Amino acid sequence: MAVETRTIALRTRGHCDVLDITEQVQNALLDTGLQNGLVMVFVPGSTGSVTTVEYEPGLEADLKTALDRLVPVGIPYQHDHRWADGNGHAHVRSALMGPSLTVPFVRGKMTLGTWQQIVFLDFDNCSRSRELVIQVLGE
Amino acid sequence: MAVETRTIALRTRGHCDVLDITEQVQNALLDTGLQNGLVMVFVPGSTGSVTTVEYEPGLEADLKTALDRLVPVGIPYQHDHRWADGNGHAHVRSALMGPSLTVPFVRGKMTLGTWQQIVFLDFDNCSRSRELVIQVLGE
Amino acid sequence: MAVETRTIALRTRGHCDVLDITEQVQNALLDTGLQNGLVMVFVPGSTGSVTTVEYEPGLEADLKTALDRLVPVGIPYQHDHRWADGNGHAHVRSALMGPSLTVPFVRGKMTLGTWQQIVFLDFDNCSRSRELVIQVLGE
Repeated sequence: MAVETRTIALRTRGHCDVLDITEQVQNALLDTGLQNGLVMVFVPGSTGSVTTVEYEPGLEADLKTALDRLVPVGIPYQHDHRWADGNGHAHVRSALMGPSLTVPFVRGKMTLGTWQQIVFLDFDNCSRSRELVIQVLGE
Repeated sequence: MAVETRTIALRTRGHCDVLDITEQVQNALLDTGLQNGLVMVFVPGSTGSVTTVEYEPGLEADLKTALDRLVPVGIPYQHDHRWADGNGHAHVRSALMGPSLTVPFVRGKMTLGTWQQIVFLDFDNCSRSRELVIQVLGE
Repeated sequence: MAVETRTIALRTRGHCDVLDITEQVQNALLDTGLQNGLVMVFVPGSTGSVTTVEYEPGLEADLKTALDRLVPVGIPYQHDHRWADGNGHAHVRSALMGPSLTVPFVRGKMTLGTWQQIVFLDFDNCSRSRELVIQVLGE
C-alpha cells in the first residue's frame, strides 16, 4: 500500500465556472501506477468545490442557476462588508458544497458511472489560476 | 494495510427515495475481515447521493420537503430542455449533495452515532436498480 | 502504511455554532507521527457537520444567515411533530452538508490553503459536548 500525491493546474474564468477535470485526475492516477484504492481530489482554497455531475452544457447552466438562487451574488454578506472582497457568496457556496471528493478505483480505473464526470467549480468573482491536490492511496 | 472493494445492489422507488443502507455497508465491511480503517460508499451515477441521517419517517419526509424547496421538481431545467429526461432536478441535487461518503471503523465497527444511519438518496424520476461501490482501506 | 484513530473533544453553544478545529486536527495528526496520507474528520452524530471555510467573523455570520434561509428554524418539521425535539432543522442541515471531511497531508502538514480552516458546525438547538473522530491513513 502506498500514498502518492500529485497536483493539477487549472485556469478558470471564475463566476461559477464548471470545469470537467476527469481526464486530468485519471492521468494523475495512471501516473502513480497503482491499481486499487481511492483517489482524493482536494481544493486548497475557500472559494471552490469539487463534485461529480453529468457534464453537458444544460446541467452546467442548471447548476449555476441553482447556486444563484440558493446563495445569491447580489445580497449583503458580512464578509464583503468587512473585507470588501465582493466574494462572500463564493465562500459560502464552497463551505456548503465542500472542498473534497473521494472516488474508488479498481484495476487502474475510477468507478465512475458512464454519465458522471468530476468537476471543479470556481465560485470566485474573477478568473483564477488554481492548483488542486490529487492524492492516491492504494496498491 | 489492504484495499477491498465490494458492491451492494439496491432497488429504489426514485423520486427522492431514502434508503437505510447501514446494515449492507456493515456486512460488506465484515466480509473484508479488516479491523481498522475507512469505509467509502460511492454512487457510480449522477442522480443519487449518499449521506447520514437519523433514519425515521419524520426526517425522511423533512429531507424530501427541504430538497423540493431548494431544488424544485417543476421548474425549468436546461438539461430537460436539451435531453427531455425530465430529471434535471435529480442531477442538480446529486451534484450539490455529492456521490461519496467516508466513515472510519475501529475493531470492525463503524464509528457512527447511535442515531445516525447511512442513507442512499435516489433523486431520479423513476424506480431504479442501483449498484453502489463499497471500498474499505484498512488493516 | 498505518491507520491511527484519535478523538477530539469540543464544547459547543449549538444553534449553528461554527468552531475552528484546524489546530486540534493538526495536533492529532502530529501525534500519529505519519508523514504522508489522508486525515479524515468524522462527526458521530446527526446534527452537526464538518467542512472548510475562511474562518473570520464575517463568514461565520454569513454561513449562519445562509443556513437560516435555506433550512429555516421556525418552519414545521415532521421530526419535531413526532419526537418533539425541536431540532428537525439541525438534522436536515447535517444530512445536506454531510458528516465527513477528508484532507491530504504531505510531510506532516495538511495541504490546506492559506485562508482555509477546518470547522465543525453544531446545528443542534442546545449547547453540546461533542467528540469527533480523527482518522489518519498514511506512512
